[in-house]
Amino acid sequence: MRLEELGEFGLIDRLRRYEGSRPGIHTGIGDDAAVVAGRAGWRTLFTADMLVEGVHFLPGTDPYRLGRKAMAVNVSDIAAMGGTPTFAAVSLGVPPDTPVSRVDKIYQGLYDEAARWQAAIVGGDTVRAPALVLNVALLGEAQEGEVLLRSGALVGDRICVTNHIGDAAAGLILLERPELAVPDGVRERLVLKHLCPSPRVEAGRELARGIATAAIDLSDGLAGDLMHICRASGVGAVIDAANLPISDDVRAVAQAAGLDPVSLAISGGEDYELLFTVPSYRQGTHVLPGSGTSYTVIGEIVDAREGIRLRLPDGELRPLSATGFRHF
Amino acid sequence: MRLEELGEFGLIDRLRRYEGSRPGIHTGIGDDAAVVAGRAGWRTLFTADMLVEGVHFLPGTDPYRLGRKAMAVNVSDIAAMGGTPTFAAVSLGVPPDTPVSRVDKIYQGLYDEAARWQAAIVGGDTVRAPALVLNVALLGEAQEGEVLLRSGALVGDRICVTNHIGDAAAGLILLERPELAVPDGVRERLVLKHLCPSPRVEAGRELARGIATAAIDLSDGLAGDLMHICRASGVGAVIDAANLPISDDVRAVAQAAGLDPVSLAISGGEDYELLFTVPSYRQGTHVLPGSGTSYTVIGEIVDAREGIRLRLPDGELRPLSATGFRHF
Repeated sequence: MRLEELGEFGLIDRLRRYEGSRPGIHTGIGDDAAVVAGRAGWRTLFTADMLVEGVHFLPGTDPYRLGRKAMAVNVSDIAAMGGTPTFAAVSLGVPPDTPVSRVDKIYQGLYDEAARWQAAIVGGDTVRAPALVLNVALLGEAQEGEVLLRSGALVGDRICVTNHIGDAAAGLILLERPELAVPDGVRERLVLKHLCPSPRVEAGRELARGIATAAIDLSDGLAGDLMHICRASGVGAVIDAANLPISDDVRAVAQAAGLDPVSLAISGGEDYELLFTVPSYRQGTHVLPGSGTSYTVIGEIVDAREGIRLRLPDGELRPLSATGFRHF
Repeated sequence: MRLEELGEFGLIDRLRRYEGSRPGIHTGIGDDAAVVAGRAGWRTLFTADMLVEGVHFLPGTDPYRLGRKAMAVNVSDIAAMGGTPTFAAVSLGVPPDTPVSRVDKIYQGLYDEAARWQAAIVGGDTVRAPALVLNVALLGEAQEGEVLLRSGALVGDRICVTNHIGDAAAGLILLERPELAVPDGVRERLVLKHLCPSPRVEAGRELARGIATAAIDLSDGLAGDLMHICRASGVGAVIDAANLPISDDVRAVAQAAGLDPVSLAISGGEDYELLFTVPSYRQGTHVLPGSGTSYTVIGEIVDAREGIRLRLPDGELRPLSATGFRHF
């Protein structure tokens, strides 16, 4: 069997067998970050993401933005656990004819994004490679009892998401199809959301203090990431299409591109918003009082046997298939 | 300026400016591993190494051996700090047509080497890539006051190395030139030393308990790694060619290949032995009583103004140029 037949998530499941055991592991392979023993009263979080030229970004990508994004997507994994980032080890593979100024800009981006969260780059590796490869391994910490996992969602919980969804996917569409007619302000905002995700660290910390039962960051797309929560928690879900927080900007792009805005919002990845569950909540859009982060109730956790479904505005329920980006 | 002009070590020096600051950093970029705050009475060690197909290993490399080596070289960095490895995050970039069995074998190797040291793989990333890229980020721990740095060598200290040097380089020569006539036993032993390095964890821990003043693992080769100790410590060094622990196996390969065994031992990398300094010691080869590791006194730390030199058997001193592998 080849990797493309097994699929990315099949592979991740398979690799759990190689995890090994050791005292101090609270949560290993399969969440946004691993949770291991930390200093007294704290847990250490540990995550890593690899970005590859031609797969995650185009060869001409602005190196500063690339550095920021590489750090931001890791910070987002720490945020989804309710933690704050601390120390990073950066591995960079790069062709030897690369201008030093390009490497400088990548590191300036990594540094700026890390500094934004008071995290530091303490080590790593620089090696020759045929194409640019950037791996960030990031540590974080969260207080004991304040760690958000994917596995805590219970039947009856409400499903919520911070801010809007689909912005990053719409931004990517605008980058790929510059001929689409949308106002310049829309283009600018959405492209920035795609290039420069903003991890929801403060919201994650607030949610971890007794508010959320489960959380994940939206990297693969709502459909795929909701599936992760449901699988880890052993539950099903119903999402209300009418309640999805889709911005007017995204609707404008969907219209210009001839796409359904709900499909775009559900399948588009890289929003790096937080998808989370709460024990029960009133409908609508609210604000987390501590961090001031806006969030919207978009559905409900149901029994696993009901699967994961989307309720259309006319009440029809249809299976929500995970159609986000897959590596294999 | 291009990376190949700046050079690998020039690049690493340059990247220190992007380190950033944060409470809890004891040693950042520039040692075998970073040293940060850990649980009470302990330090956390953090290192990462990226291996790239076609650069660090040939496309046909046995995947199990590759996995073992990728973990072992990181464990070796932890060993050089006097620590023991704890948790790893593994990032694997791989073409989608790769057989799943090949990925399994890489992870089996990673797992077996981690398990050998009671370390566990707790997370990571699997992504599509044009060629195989394997990054291991590894945590370790060492007790406060028992961390070995590159920067502690003092004038008058003796320079020592564990076991033998040049074996891995000789093994690589035998792989690249299978026509060389050496006994089968020699070929087998040296190729294994190249493919399957054995990190010196027990020796590192023992050295960290008040024996060594500085240490590094031999990845770049004796000349290059000694330079790192000298630069970090602000000292010079004299190495006695006559005292280098060069095995009969390596001498046999040097003879068959028409190479000088001393040059081979000094410039050859990837032995993953420990190079360390002690306050003063009798000459010769000894055994660390705790770990049973053999080591040999090979030179002396001198004033920085004397540079880094090799004393030939006839007493002549010549500059020891760092001729190990460089990425840029």
